[in-house]
Amino acid sequence: MKTTRRKHWGWGRENEQLPHEQLRAAAVTVSQRLGFGEHEPARPVELSEVALPDPRLRPTADLRPICLTDAHARARHAYGSSYRDVVRGFQGRFDHPPDVVAMPGDELELERTLEWALGAGAAVIPYGGGTSVVGGVEPEVGDRFDGTVTIDMTRMDRVLEVDSTSRAARIQAGAAGPALEAQLREHGMTLRHYPQSFEFATLGGMIATRAAGHFATLQTHIDELVESIRALTPAGPWESRRLPGSGAGPSPDRLLIGSEGTLGLICEAWVRVRPRPRFRSSATVRFAEFSAGAAALRELSQSGLNPAGCRLIEAAEAALTGAGDGSSALLLLSFESAAFETGAALVTALECCADHGGSWDAGGAGGAGEDHASGTWRAAFLRAPYLRDLLVAIGVLSETFETAITWDRFERLHAEVVTRTTAAVRDACGAGSVTCRITHVYPDGPAPYYTVLAPVRIGEELEQWDLIKRAAAEAILAAGGTITHHHAIGRDHRPWYDLQRPEPFAAALRAAKAAVDPSGALNPGVLLDSPGPAGRAAR
Amino acid sequence: MKTTRRKHWGWGRENEQLPHEQLRAAAVTVSQRLGFGEHEPARPVELSEVALPDPRLRPTADLRPICLTDAHARARHAYGSSYRDVVRGFQGRFDHPPDVVAMPGDELELERTLEWALGAGAAVIPYGGGTSVVGGVEPEVGDRFDGTVTIDMTRMDRVLEVDSTSRAARIQAGAAGPALEAQLREHGMTLRHYPQSFEFATLGGMIATRAAGHFATLQTHIDELVESIRALTPAGPWESRRLPGSGAGPSPDRLLIGSEGTLGLICEAWVRVRPRPRFRSSATVRFAEFSAGAAALRELSQSGLNPAGCRLIEAAEAALTGAGDGSSALLLLSFESAAFETGAALVTALECCADHGGSWDAGGAGGAGEDHASGTWRAAFLRAPYLRDLLVAIGVLSETFETAITWDRFERLHAEVVTRTTAAVRDACGAGSVTCRITHVYPDGPAPYYTVLAPVRIGEELEQWDLIKRAAAEAILAAGGTITHHHAIGRDHRPWYDLQRPEPFAAALRAAKAAVDPSGALNPGVLLDSPGPAGRAAR
Repeated sequence: MKTTRRKHWGWGRENEQLPHEQLRAAAVTVSQRLGFGEHEPARPVELSEVALPDPRLRPTADLRPICLTDAHARARHAYGSSYRDVVRGFQGRFDHPPDVVAMPGDELELERTLEWALGAGAAVIPYGGGTSVVGGVEPEVGDRFDGTVTIDMTRMDRVLEVDSTSRAARIQAGAAGPALEAQLREHGMTLRHYPQSFEFATLGGMIATRAAGHFATLQTHIDELVESIRALTPAGPWESRRLPGSGAGPSPDRLLIGSEGTLGLICEAWVRVRPRPRFRSSATVRFAEFSAGAAALRELSQSGLNPAGCRLIEAAEAALTGAGDGSSALLLLSFESAAFETGAALVTALECCADHGGSWDAGGAGGAGEDHASGTWRAAFLRAPYLRDLLVAIGVLSETFETAITWDRFERLHAEVVTRTTAAVRDACGAGSVTCRITHVYPDGPAPYYTVLAPVRIGEELEQWDLIKRAAAEAILAAGGTITHHHAIGRDHRPWYDLQRPEPFAAALRAAKAAVDPSGALNPGVLLDSPGPAGRAAR
Repeated sequence: MKTTRRKHWGWGRENEQLPHEQLRAAAVTVSQRLGFGEHEPARPVELSEVALPDPRLRPTADLRPICLTDAHARARHAYGSSYRDVVRGFQGRFDHPPDVVAMPGDELELERTLEWALGAGAAVIPYGGGTSVVGGVEPEVGDRFDGTVTIDMTRMDRVLEVDSTSRAARIQAGAAGPALEAQLREHGMTLRHYPQSFEFATLGGMIATRAAGHFATLQTHIDELVESIRALTPAGPWESRRLPGSGAGPSPDRLLIGSEGTLGLICEAWVRVRPRPRFRSSATVRFAEFSAGAAALRELSQSGLNPAGCRLIEAAEAALTGAGDGSSALLLLSFESAAFETGAALVTALECCADHGGSWDAGGAGGAGEDHASGTWRAAFLRAPYLRDLLVAIGVLSETFETAITWDRFERLHAEVVTRTTAAVRDACGAGSVTCRITHVYPDGPAPYYTVLAPVRIGEELEQWDLIKRAAAEAILAAGGTITHHHAIGRDHRPWYDLQRPEPFAAALRAAKAAVDPSGALNPGVLLDSPGPAGRAAR
């Protein structure tokens, strides 16, 4: 399976694409469930029908063995995995694919690739699993560069060292979820960082974008799992010490974490790993109202119980995934430990839920296994990126956005976001739904996550989505939220990120980038504007 | 008590200084216990005998009411609280006191002070409680500035807002531990961040220096308690959104946290607070060997039990403080919660200790109260800064240093540090002790903390300590540790910090500072070199 290449558009591998007859059967089921969408799926534009612009760059002879310039490689690296990306890929629209896709196998090859690309006046786009949903890997860099080189890191996919004493591992940036976990399993360890994109997302990409995993409390973001990072910058290697904690100036790691490829190319990192859990306790708690569930969630988040899983799903969204019947909001609650029994913690947490009107099936609580709702939810969660390819084919818009906010302002933000986004969905699409789940919680606030499903007009999808996205983002910003809790900024979130960040910090970040990347070649347009002509002259 | 002014040297307030007869009695006791030190304490140089250089700056008329230029204010703000500082203050050596001490009462006054100081070509030193032990507030800024203005923040000491729903509070930067806690207590809340300097340390200072509190796990540093920060920079206000979590680019807060006054003047912050604990369980566990205690500590740190207190004290150090009899290492272990019983967690933790040969008194375990050893330890801990003033008077060197390291390298680092520092103590002082405790633990490593006590020759103390410090710092760096886990960098740690940090990060930080502080006036010499003549010309 690993040797089968990825589809040139959408999610998954070429051998996972369902035959058209099966898609058609699925289309009927899905569109009936949603109440919209075509029964006859459109067909994606074949790669052979796509005309890509000629590559503007030619790698030097020594780099040619690790460089790709064929249509599949260039098309596949032209986008990430947002709805906008899938639609464009499906329709065969590839306006600015990378000129060259380099696939270094080690740091020396990475260094030589970077050196060549900078010397050639190219923009350099680091690329992991291509799972960005914010335009983070799209080579749309303006006209200030002589071309674009996408550096695909996935050949650098090894766990290099495991320190079982400190429970840490040194892992190459290109290691994607399954391969990373398989290698750690040989040492009885796990990273247990499971974003929805787990199948393809790489460690380097997770660090560069501050990815969130499945832990609902404490180690929510990869940030907390990073012990040290090694990155290549045009100004030389940036490598921090392996330290469990430090107070020596502002954290060098925290400046790289979230830098989205603009400051350096992450080569490898020491990350905190752990043994696989031996004890688990979980329950699915039903709440008649989402707000009652949120109140329970707040108390849980402030209790110090720190559940591993603590996901509250609105009734309508639970129904959409088959995890619930639509009559109640569901709280998927779980504890896990490699060291001690977790049953008592679950009992305490359930008492808290009961105080807020929560109820659960006696059989489903306290057990070590996964109950039905959790299992159904998880299957739907992992299937979602695959499902979206079908939705695009039947004219259904399917996209998500998320934020975080302190508890005191959560209700207002939630109401505003739902109201304004729903209105925009109606305006743009005539019908559709906006549903919510809370994916992560902190003592001071939740991270709500919204899903939009709506019928679209083929050929107008991007404009329709853009209207909805703008309404949602404006509502979030106005209510005090962050434009992203874990989807990163990329190119797509720039307008709101620019409003959100403190202006002196923007100036500091711009200067920091100029110091380590004087020509501004690293992922231009992400986080910061692409440099002007002066930047180019400095090359 | 609050109205009594601070001593112009050393720790505490003027009315807390013991009469000479009492000091003499204490000197006998202490020197007998240590085996060195004079029985007759020397007397500090009176302020009236100190000749300070004339102030080079004169505040504008509108700022005069909030500015001090008297000898006491200037002498008291000349140093922090390191051993080097106390010695120099005691001996009346004030080579570079600030020219002006400004005490703004609100942000507007702070802004006007900053504006005036920058315009006057002064270096600006932000000053909280003056508890820096690394030269972080010493106005030694070279000859590139026309004077120094120390901005004392302690008039900005109010809790401005408490959000009980989100468990967060907006607090002015100048609020010191006791006043801050007293104001939070009115709302039933606490920050529970207790550095040893709690009595005087301010919130702004804690944030600027990444201070560690008494939580041994999870929220070890103030970093974890910060929700958002507002700071004034020469380029304008730097204010982040109140967010429980975010993935929007590198964290703006994490760049300010640890910036030690070099990027901006922290005015206020939203911090995470909590209700006071209702449940507590604690025990003191004895280990025949420090290494067995460390092994238990490692298992505890990796268990997920996350004790609130988890401090392992070497037998010799426990004896010095009276907490133990010197026959065993002591682990002070405690759990606390506002939400649920903690007895079960303690039982599980004690089982882990027993596996490593730990033993405890049945009466001392599981109880809600504090046992004898913990109470004695805590009293000694809080008394230590006061005691040091006496030690200086009787010719005893008393200083600490600390680090953090991953577990796999801890034993080697510890052995190297003790060997090399002890050798340096013998070389420099002929006698003395180096003892260790572990103050904070992480799943991937501990933070060991070392105390040096030795007889010194009056007048040569600084040179003697510098030899010891250099040996200790070199051993730490060579063994892979950090030059500081929570004492910050200041001016004193620069040589080793410069070796430790990644060079591209140093370049990025330098550039970031230049972007928000073009003249380099904010705390010059801290973290980064003071700017050269070009920097001055740019003013």
